[in-house]
Amino acid sequence: MTAYDDQNIFAKILRGEIPSFKVYEDDETLCFMDIMPRTDGHCLVIPKTPCRNILDATPAQLAACMATVSKVANAAKKAFAADGITLQQFSEAAGGQEVFHLHFHIHPRHEGLPMRPPGKMGDMDVIKGHAEKIAAAIS
Amino acid sequence: MTAYDDQNIFAKILRGEIPSFKVYEDDETLCFMDIMPRTDGHCLVIPKTPCRNILDATPAQLAACMATVSKVANAAKKAFAADGITLQQFSEAAGGQEVFHLHFHIHPRHEGLPMRPPGKMGDMDVIKGHAEKIAAAIS
Repeated sequence: MTAYDDQNIFAKILRGEIPSFKVYEDDETLCFMDIMPRTDGHCLVIPKTPCRNILDATPAQLAACMATVSKVANAAKKAFAADGITLQQFSEAAGGQEVFHLHFHIHPRHEGLPMRPPGKMGDMDVIKGHAEKIAAAIS
Repeated sequence: MTAYDDQNIFAKILRGEIPSFKVYEDDETLCFMDIMPRTDGHCLVIPKTPCRNILDATPAQLAACMATVSKVANAAKKAFAADGITLQQFSEAAGGQEVFHLHFHIHPRHEGLPMRPPGKMGDMDVIKGHAEKIAAAIS
């Protein structure tokens, strides 16, 4: 397996070298908005420590991420009055991964509303508002 | 949120009331094959204790599932000489969920090969062979 590259954009976000719209943070994890949102409220949960994906993550990194995923998913469902949540995690390029720091995609879903196609940049003001809306719903 | 219904098919698999092609089992989790595989090696990880999805799962249930997901994902990648893994988890019908016992979908992926459409029953002999192949690769 390819080694972890600390120049990936999520490592830069963790070091504060590039900005992000933060939703939630604890000692082990960070949640911030995806700037190419496939659903309103599409956000990402990552561990603060380095690993590439689920193939090299430790049980502790995965456990910390999933505790945050569950917390944020409940908040996002409430914030967007969503009917459900779709969670995705991609490991390696063939699995769909584009940034090689472990991340989980959280998508609030509404009945009958498909996800938008990937790869389209969102409106930054709207995304900022969505981050605040989810953050406010975290208990 | 709707209460857990212990008549769902995964609860029946856990009680041994209906069969499954088992890949792996430990005290907390079970991994078995999806019988409508969207990729070769498509399997599911579930907790042995009841919960509906990530919205009501405890951190302990999620941690146990993810430790098994990581173990099985590495084994499946090796068994199928896959290039990557796609992990999916659906919470509530709008999120894509069809069986209301928490489960994670593990998909071995190969470069350039899309996932098959959902909903088509696989060949049981082939699926049985795939279960054995992944089980043999678990270290």
